[in-house]
Amino acid sequence: MSLVVVGSIAFDAVKTPFGERERMLGGSAVHFALAASFFSDVRIVGPVGDDFGDAEYGVLHECGVNTDDVERAAGDTFFWAGRYEDDLNTRVTEDTRLGVFEDFQPKLSEASRAAEMVFLGNIQPDLQRDVRGQCDDAALVGLDSMNLWIDTARDSLVAAVSEVDLVMLDEAEIRMLTEEQNLLRAARTLMELGPQTVVAKQGDHGAALYREDEFFALPAYPLETVIDPTGAGDSFAGGFLGSLAASGGEADGPALRRATAYGSVLGSFCVEEFGTERIQRLTREEIDERYAELQGMTALDAAPA
Amino acid sequence: MSLVVVGSIAFDAVKTPFGERERMLGGSAVHFALAASFFSDVRIVGPVGDDFGDAEYGVLHECGVNTDDVERAAGDTFFWAGRYEDDLNTRVTEDTRLGVFEDFQPKLSEASRAAEMVFLGNIQPDLQRDVRGQCDDAALVGLDSMNLWIDTARDSLVAAVSEVDLVMLDEAEIRMLTEEQNLLRAARTLMELGPQTVVAKQGDHGAALYREDEFFALPAYPLETVIDPTGAGDSFAGGFLGSLAASGGEADGPALRRATAYGSVLGSFCVEEFGTERIQRLTREEIDERYAELQGMTALDAAPA
Repeated sequence: MSLVVVGSIAFDAVKTPFGERERMLGGSAVHFALAASFFSDVRIVGPVGDDFGDAEYGVLHECGVNTDDVERAAGDTFFWAGRYEDDLNTRVTEDTRLGVFEDFQPKLSEASRAAEMVFLGNIQPDLQRDVRGQCDDAALVGLDSMNLWIDTARDSLVAAVSEVDLVMLDEAEIRMLTEEQNLLRAARTLMELGPQTVVAKQGDHGAALYREDEFFALPAYPLETVIDPTGAGDSFAGGFLGSLAASGGEADGPALRRATAYGSVLGSFCVEEFGTERIQRLTREEIDERYAELQGMTALDAAPA
Repeated sequence: MSLVVVGSIAFDAVKTPFGERERMLGGSAVHFALAASFFSDVRIVGPVGDDFGDAEYGVLHECGVNTDDVERAAGDTFFWAGRYEDDLNTRVTEDTRLGVFEDFQPKLSEASRAAEMVFLGNIQPDLQRDVRGQCDDAALVGLDSMNLWIDTARDSLVAAVSEVDLVMLDEAEIRMLTEEQNLLRAARTLMELGPQTVVAKQGDHGAALYREDEFFALPAYPLETVIDPTGAGDSFAGGFLGSLAASGGEADGPALRRATAYGSVLGSFCVEEFGTERIQRLTREEIDERYAELQGMTALDAAPA
């Protein structure tokens, strides 16, 4: 199935306890597209500036990502600078420069409008709704967001959530958006708005999947060293939607569980190095090997008779 | 196999967002023993005061817990008062009265000394070491502790850890004790001290089991309402060790995974009501039903060929 992602295309400056990068390719749509590219064709929608060059396009093309809907405008590409504290869970934003994102008005090509699966990466919720409106025929539309939009554009975000099939958020964001501490109740509150599926990303605790008639939870793949958490959630989303697209968009229980596991595997590779470095040289064999490991690590026998 | 637990026997006063109890049966050894009693014979070791009466003994005897090693002394039974914040994760101790625990010197009966499995519940680590020394023949000795002892008796606790086979702690305590943020590294650090098995309790994120050649993680059973988290960790430990005892103490991979799941199930029932209320009327059928549910909720297919 055809898969489109809209979101940020960015340069990131990141400091972690393990080192730093002053300027590297990043952004929610980039991390998503690279992860999804191991499973299906993927088109990326978003704006870039004059400073986005052949090297950056090259990373996307190398993975087979279609960049026909990348809009080049005068100005600078979106820039984000941040650092992580020692526990790697606390992220501090040090600088955000919107650049060409400031005037971004997504206009999807015919090919992107016809996509069967769409992922609305973490951008202003009114932009997400705009894109959603352009993809009326999509069989499955997913959405990510962040605390910034819950704080500053709650009504728009609630409207955006009500128009999609699948919501994928950090568990803290789900609690914040629903004002409900209990995650099971919070997920139900989101489903009442419209989505049939809610995925709670739980960082190093894994992920949980909620549907009316289904609950699935998967621990994270255990890593001895996490170098840079940037992009983990987007890589998770890319692995998830990409694998769903590969299975023909079947959103039944087993396919959604596999999607959760592939998402988790892609997220775990992403954080092993800075930015897109690890994913750029990842192979499908490594992905399937880690999937099998994760399956083994979570296998539980039936109770003894 | 025979199973002995040493720990606190207490009266608890607890306030949660869902209500309060001014005085109810509690304590680490009590919660452990009640949970373990569904799987195996269990003996409880600890001191009680004049105020510990027939009603309290009755709860233990009703579940078949052997109380021959409960020492009755002049004075008051250990008393703990605390409250939980709205998120139910933040616990504030409001009062602690040691009572008869102040002068407690464990002297195990012959029967308890001969136990094949021993659990050292959360008490001062020198007392844990004392009991450990009295149970030289035990095939498996487990230990729990808490942040208080990491702060105030670190060296004793490290010595106690080095003398047991299995350590079962909250993940935050494992990080605190090892001064290592990464849980996989932290668990390895504990194993280097001696224990072959480390179990990280992760609250509503479940539990993870670490051994040299094994990693297993299990999400928590999803609950829509948690009434009182008191005793959840001890109930987890009781279900874990009890089920291991029932499987003949076989501490191989599948048995440890089942033990983790039974621990998780017992912990999930414990928090559904105040103190021991839910566990007192729990049945083995309910336990096995929830085990099967948990197994279903975590089942993941192999990757498609």
